[in-house]
This record gives sequence, C-alpha cells and structure tokens, in this order.
Amino acid sequence: MSAPPPPRMRWWGWGEDGHAAGLPAAAEAMLESELGAGLQRTPRVEFEAVELPEPNVPEDLAAALAQAVGKDNVRDDRLTRVSHAAGRSYPDLFRLRSGKLEAAPDAVVYPDTHEEVAAVIDACDRAGAAIVPFGGGTSVVGGVEPLAGGKQAAITLDLARMDRLLDSDERSLTATFEPGVTGPDAERLLGERGLTLGHFPQSFEYATIGGFVATRSAGQASTGYGRIDELVLGLRCATPAGELRVAAHPASAAGPALRELLVGSEGALGVITEATLAVRPIPKARRYEAWALRSFAEGAEALRALEQSGAAPDVTRLSDEQETRMSLALSATGSLKDRAGRAYLRLRRRRGGALAIFGWEGDAERVAERRAATVPLLREAGAVALGQGAGRSWLRGRYAGPYLRDELLDRGVFVETLETATSWTNLDNLYAAVGDALRSTLAGRGTPPLVICHISHLYRSGASLYFTFLARSEAGAELDQWHAAKSAACDAIIAAGGTITHHHAVGRDHAPWMTGEVGALGVDALRALKQRLDPNGVMNPGKLLAA
Amino acid sequence: MSAPPPPRMRWWGWGEDGHAAGLPAAAEAMLESELGAGLQRTPRVEFEAVELPEPNVPEDLAAALAQAVGKDNVRDDRLTRVSHAAGRSYPDLFRLRSGKLEAAPDAVVYPDTHEEVAAVIDACDRAGAAIVPFGGGTSVVGGVEPLAGGKQAAITLDLARMDRLLDSDERSLTATFEPGVTGPDAERLLGERGLTLGHFPQSFEYATIGGFVATRSAGQASTGYGRIDELVLGLRCATPAGELRVAAHPASAAGPALRELLVGSEGALGVITEATLAVRPIPKARRYEAWALRSFAEGAEALRALEQSGAAPDVTRLSDEQETRMSLALSATGSLKDRAGRAYLRLRRRRGGALAIFGWEGDAERVAERRAATVPLLREAGAVALGQGAGRSWLRGRYAGPYLRDELLDRGVFVETLETATSWTNLDNLYAAVGDALRSTLAGRGTPPLVICHISHLYRSGASLYFTFLARSEAGAELDQWHAAKSAACDAIIAAGGTITHHHAVGRDHAPWMTGEVGALGVDALRALKQRLDPNGVMNPGKLLAA
Repeated sequence: MSAPPPPRMRWWGWGEDGHAAGLPAAAEAMLESELGAGLQRTPRVEFEAVELPEPNVPEDLAAALAQAVGKDNVRDDRLTRVSHAAGRSYPDLFRLRSGKLEAAPDAVVYPDTHEEVAAVIDACDRAGAAIVPFGGGTSVVGGVEPLAGGKQAAITLDLARMDRLLDSDERSLTATFEPGVTGPDAERLLGERGLTLGHFPQSFEYATIGGFVATRSAGQASTGYGRIDELVLGLRCATPAGELRVAAHPASAAGPALRELLVGSEGALGVITEATLAVRPIPKARRYEAWALRSFAEGAEALRALEQSGAAPDVTRLSDEQETRMSLALSATGSLKDRAGRAYLRLRRRRGGALAIFGWEGDAERVAERRAATVPLLREAGAVALGQGAGRSWLRGRYAGPYLRDELLDRGVFVETLETATSWTNLDNLYAAVGDALRSTLAGRGTPPLVICHISHLYRSGASLYFTFLARSEAGAELDQWHAAKSAACDAIIAAGGTITHHHAVGRDHAPWMTGEVGALGVDALRALKQRLDPNGVMNPGKLLAA
Repeated sequence: MSAPPPPRMRWWGWGEDGHAAGLPAAAEAMLESELGAGLQRTPRVEFEAVELPEPNVPEDLAAALAQAVGKDNVRDDRLTRVSHAAGRSYPDLFRLRSGKLEAAPDAVVYPDTHEEVAAVIDACDRAGAAIVPFGGGTSVVGGVEPLAGGKQAAITLDLARMDRLLDSDERSLTATFEPGVTGPDAERLLGERGLTLGHFPQSFEYATIGGFVATRSAGQASTGYGRIDELVLGLRCATPAGELRVAAHPASAAGPALRELLVGSEGALGVITEATLAVRPIPKARRYEAWALRSFAEGAEALRALEQSGAAPDVTRLSDEQETRMSLALSATGSLKDRAGRAYLRLRRRRGGALAIFGWEGDAERVAERRAATVPLLREAGAVALGQGAGRSWLRGRYAGPYLRDELLDRGVFVETLETATSWTNLDNLYAAVGDALRSTLAGRGTPPLVICHISHLYRSGASLYFTFLARSEAGAELDQWHAAKSAACDAIIAAGGTITHHHAVGRDHAPWMTGEVGALGVDALRALKQRLDPNGVMNPGKLLAA
C-alpha cells in the first residue's frame, strides 16, 4: 500500500521549488508605467511564521478515519495542513504569502480506493465533519478552501493515491481513470497505449482528472478536442447517500442526464472515484502558428467565420490589443526564442493589432488540409502570418501564467483572472461591460488597472472571454480591493448576459452569483438534489451553493 | 387569438386520412413465409364503436381552466379525447384499433403562451389533477398516455397553438421556438431565413420542438447535425413550483447543467415553453447513396473507422442481413423507383450482404471533399457502391415506417421497434443478446418473429442499434405478447450493458427499467428533483419514473 505523497506544489505559490523565476525588464517597466506610482516589493512570510488554527479532530472521528484509510494515511502535520489550506486564487495566494490563514483542514486523509472514499465519507457524515475533496489544489475560485460550514471539523480528502488508469478500450477510444491522476500522468499512461486525452488547461501540470470533471473544465485545445463535459462518458461517485454510477453509454434518451449533474458538482454532492473519458489516438503532427489580426473586433469576426464553417483550428486564441501589447513586453528580453521574437517585432510595427495563436493536431495530411481550409478565411480578414516560431513559443510557455503571477505578487501587483462566455452577437457588449466594470471600480479606488483579454474557446453559437487584470496592490486592503473588483465584474457579467464562469467553476467565489446564473428555482433544484445525496450537508460546504 | 387546431393525425393510426396505403405482394409473401401460418386480417373498429370513460372534470377546475386559456380552448368532445388518448406505440395502436381505451383525458386544454401554461399548471395543481403535456402525440413509449396517477382527473395540455418562431439570431446561428412547432413548420420558418435545424426523426412530420427536447430525441441526420441534446442551448420551463429558465450560453462551468435535467424530462418536471436551439445554414448540396457491405459485422467495423477518423457522413445507416432482405422485399414492386430497383437487384445477388445508406449535406465543395474522404475507407472494407438512385429512394421514404406499421396491423402482424446504444467493443454482444431474447421469447409463445436491425447513429465511442420485430399477432393476447417481448428485450439490454433507450425516451414503457439504467440512488435523485419542482406529483404521472 502506497504512502501519501508529499505536497505537489510549494506551499506559498504555484509549482515546485527551483522553478525558474523572473520578469523581463521591459515588462516591469510597462507595469510601472501602466499601473501608476512605484510598485512596492511584498515578500512572503517564512513558513515558520504562518499562523493557522490548532487542529481539532474529535477522538471518535480520528479513530474512524484511521480505520477507513490506515493510520499512516491520516495527516495533521503543519506542512500537510498548510499545503491544503488554500487553492491558488489571488485571495488564496495573498493569505498564504501573508501567513494569515483563516482556516486549515483539521486533518488530511488519503484514501486509496472507492471503498475507502466511501468509508471516509461515512465516518465524517456520522461525526458531523465537513469533507473537502482535493485533487491538484489548483482551484482559482476557492473550491478547496477547508470550510467547516458550521460542522465541528473540516477534513480534506486528498485523492493523490488514487492515481491509476483502470482500463482503456482502444476500439471504443475510452479510458477509465481514478480521480487523482494528474494531467501529465494521464497523458503518460495513455501515451503508452498510443492515446491522448487532449485536455490541457493552464493548470495541467498539477490538476487532476477528478478535478477536471468536478469543475467542468476546458483546456487550451478544447475547441478541437472538446471540453471535459464533452469527453466524460461514465462516472462513479461516492456520496453520503451511497454510490451513484453513470454507465458510459455513447448516448442515451433515458431521461435527464445524471452525468451532467455530477460533472460540475465540485465535491458538493459526492466524490468522483472513477471517470470514463473519450480519448483519441496521439496526433502524429502538430502545427502552431501566430498571426496578426487588424483588431480584436475584426479578429473575433474571423474566428466566428472559422468556427461556423467548420474550419477552426484545435487551438484558437485571440488576444485583444492590450493583451497583445503585454505579450510583446513579456517577450522582449529573451523569454521567447529568437525567431518568435522577430515575429513579435514585426507585429509590434502594426499598431493596434491583435495577436492570434492557431494550432492544428492530427495526421500530417489532415493537419495540412485543415490548415489550408483555415488560411483563406484568415487572409480574407486581413490577417498576417507571423510564422511557426511564435506558435512554438506559445506552446512552450502555455503553462507559464500561474508562475508569472507569483512574480507579480512579489512586486506588489494585484493580479487576477476571470472568464465568461456568450453568443457571438453579445460578445462585444459583454467584453465592454466587464472591462468597464473593472476599470471604473479599480480607478475609483485609486488603483487604475490594466485589463487584458483573450478569446480562447470557440462554439458555433459564441465564444469565451478570458480577462486578466492587474493593478497596484492596496497595501492593508488587499482582500477588499479584490472583492470590489471581483464583485463589480461578476455583477457586470450577469447584467450583460454572460455566464458567471466558462471553465473556472463556481467554488466559493462565484457562489453568490448562482441565483443570477440559474435563477432562484434553479438553485432550489440543486439544493433539493444535494439534500437527497448529502442530507447532513457535509460535502464541501460553502462551495457551489452559497451558505 | 387562434382557435385550437383539429387533431393532426387520424385517430386510429399514423398520419392523415388519404395517405396512400398498401404493401408490396413480395413483402406480404415474405411475411407469410417468415412468420408461419396464415396471417388474419384484423380491421379496426369504427370511430363510433370506441369505448371511452366519461369525462370527469370537477366544476372548480373547469372554471379555472376556462379562466386560464379561454372557454373555447378547453375541449372534451369525443374526437378530441380519442385523439389524445394514446400515442403511437404498438399497445397504443392496438387499443385504438380495438376500440378499448383504458383511459382518455377528461379534458384537453390549448394554452397560447408561457403564462397560460403556467395558469393551467396552477389550476391543476390546486385541484389535484394530473397534467399530460402533448406535442405531436407521436410517442412510441407511452409518453402521452392520459394517466391520472391517482389524481381525480387527467388534463391533457396540447401545445398546438404555441407554434411560433420567437427569435432567430443569424450571427450566432440560434433560433428560439415555442414548443408546439412541428418538424416541417420549424424547417419552413427557418428556411425563410436561410437556416435549418437538421433534426429529422422518423416522426418528423408530426412531432414537435417541445417533444424533441422533452424526449432527448435523435434524428436520422444526427450523426452529422447532432442529437437534440447537442442542439439545445437555452430553455424556459413552467413547473408547479414556478418558472425555470436556462440561459443560452454557448458553454458554462457554473455547476451541474440544469439544461440537461430539463432535456429528457418528459413532462414529469414541467412544460417546456421555449427552446433556443443551434441552427445551421441550409445545405446547398445533398448527396445520398446506397452501398453494399459484405456483412453487418464488417459494415459495423467500417462505420467505426469512418466515425473515429472524422470521415462519417451526416446520415449513416447500416442494415443487418435480415433488414436488408426485408428492404429488398419492400422495394420489389415499385415502391422504389427504377434505378433504385436495379441497384437493389444488384445487391440481391450478393447473398448475405448488408445495405448501407450514406448522406452528405453542406456546400457542394465540402460534400465532394467529405465524400472523397469516406469512399476509400468503404472500399477498403470491401463495400460496393449501389448508386445515388437507391440513396434518393431512401430519402423519399425516410418517414414511411409508421404508415407501414398500420398496414401490418391490418394484416394481423405484431410489429414493434426498440433501440439502444453501446460501445463499439460491446456492440456485437448487445446485438446478439437483444435478438436472441426476442426470438426465444416469441418462439416460446408459438409466434416466431422476424427480427431486423440497423445502426443509425455513430459516436466516437459506440453506436446505436435499432431493432424492428414482427410476428404473428396472438389474437386475444396481443398486449401479453407485446409485454413478454418488450420485457425480455429490456432485460437483455440492461444485462448486456446497453442503454434502455437511445432516442425513444422512457415514457411509461421503459420506466420499470430506470433502476437498471441509473441505479436506485439515481432514480431517487430524480425523484428528489421532481419533488421540489412538482411537489404534488401532478406532472405526467407514471412516465419517466414508475409509480
């Protein structure tokens, strides 16, 4: 029986110790000039200085948990608790770096099987303790915060030991995973069989299969490979009320789709213990390119034409003018390779342009055919090719964002992301509404922001918008500043007809907007479902549905 | 304000009066030879001889219904009641033709707006009367049977007056319909705007948008255009607990998908009053062809290769050897045109062959390109082209099945269909299990059947199987015979790992197998949801969830 693995990420930020850090001087200069007066370095506290509440696990529960998973798989040491005290949102990072944790799990348990998960749930349900399922811990919406929700303890259920590929069916192109398999491990295990899942969110290096499913995730290549909700076929789930299994039928008309209730359930109904997913043969060829569009608005129209004519690449991203400028600044001092640098320099000469990345994957012949279908539509839209060098650079740096965030926090920059989606017809309106809300709110606090945005997921009826906003951090009022900006943006999204989240999920941060998203009766319907599956409300309290 | 339209279909069977009838002599001879001893003509009773219970609407409810929709839109005349007493399953048709209805609605109401639907629901909920939503009345699983479910009356809510296209967005390729719009009307209304829904189930001529959504329908071209659950974006629904609205976002990660609870809800949670669907530009070109495969098993493998390589046509159907023989018999006396006849004759010389129909739709260039991608894979599988004549014949006769069924019932033939789906790996096993169950059960009753089957919907992970079975009708025990065959097939489907229904829905007939389909806790979860939205259990009792 395997022992619990050590925490995957360093306790205070993204990734592992030893990851190369740094920010190009040009980027730093751009931030100084855009965000106003001098930024102040705000280093993190030392691990020893982190304050966290004493663990409090009632004796009966401690015994039942040890019985369920074995004594060695129940941990309450300081490093384990700090490493499970927060996800990776801005408030999470702020609380970790300042050493002032509001909450930490009273214990962390590491089950190894569906039956052990069920036993942990049973023990907590009987003892009246909250259960917080934990995959990669990469949530940026407060999804893994160890909230007790009025219960006497909060037990984090870490799925790291459930890391197996249980089955693969090469004829039907499906694979069944345990929930704790990370993105890279899933690709490695499938790769040995000539298969790929093709799911590459920015959190790929640490996020897990169970997390993908529980948060209704989308990856960078989901325009081509499909969102996780399009890849999930079957599920097994342990709930306080028992086991729920959804068979992996290719399609069914047998009533409401229970699968779609468990996908996106964010640990609030139960713990996903197995997921059967659609997979594909590993692509033999990949081609990534950068292009320059004349403007974000014209680029969006070009993407609509691509998608609706079936000619969209598998990866399709279009930065607005502000994000394009920021990308240029970040690439100015060698973080991108020479050829890419030259391409970006060509782009820089086109003032007001919008940078796009396109990627095709598959058999070499199909990649060539599909690219040949894309290019005429791009040229018709006035787009200019910047070459494969910049495309490859993007591919190399595709998971870099979260590391960069730690660098920015070091420098006193408030940085956060949020994302939404709407119809093509409403896209301009939503883009303007969210940007305006962020700019006016933060300017009103004396910290005018830089708001940048890209489109990264295309649908026949619309697209996603992914915003990143940066401002001078309000020393001493960091969480107020975050809350004001986040609230203004969420209110603007609901008012402008967008969805409150396209792929980050609801967690704690978006829960107050669920009524705006699905209506009061929609929330009630979800509550009725939770009441049946989790009658005592022990599953991930405070997430998905506000208290 | 429009008056209620007359019943769309003749009271005793499929379609309208005056529809050409007949069965080729060769088909009749084949049935005689396959189904054993001489078939006996079993004509239907005259309309006047139909027995039905007296209507019983309490005075208060009658007044409230008249208040809700206007007096002229509440009907309880004999023709209206008989026309709403049954769907179009074999037991439905048998009961209609024999004139022995178990139940009929106490009244039929025709609301014109969401608000009127809500008022009808409110009136029935207060009075303790069951509500049976009714679109085209084409259910083949008992979905529209006017069961009172222990309530004091059963009120059928006919959506025929709600027949408007409310909105279309040509930029986002979406259209919002009222639920009572029929298939042909939807195509006509969209066609005026250059658009198509592309949803063509065999019931297309009479079925409605609301029915498509409520039953999680698939059409003949759904391999290309997508099932209705892939086309639904937004919904508005009137429930006893109030209005539920799902916004038409292109995608969202905001928790469990409530949309997927309403799709397939079969009137048991509420009445769908608006549906926003993805639409497409009308295809400029269409090409339909027949091909002969060496066997059903080899053909299935060819379809798998097509689908998994992205080279599947929009319509892809493969008949097994028995269905191929039956198609030949049906085409033998001129119901198919000459060129098609010649093609079929060429096929007939290939003993044991399996007939396939392939259809591509879109721009002429894309149709040619896509066909060029399909053909090499077909040739590799040893398939032989039979030409476009037979393909066009299939297209002309694509809605003929239900008319043919009435002919068979006239001749004393028991005929029923059922459908399922499973992974490619399990397809042979499921095919054999269902066929064996039907053959052994009906042979055991002294009425050995002809069981024929086709694959009509492809998915990357699997495919559907659509069975038709015919046997000598057991005079005097028709419903027992049906029940024995249906039960044996459903048990076999669950045991062999198929879904209980791929596109016919659950209705009354499949409700006993829902525990086999989604498990006891899955059924409980659906009940909890129903309890919240329909606390008094007035919505379509006895459907979806067994009493």
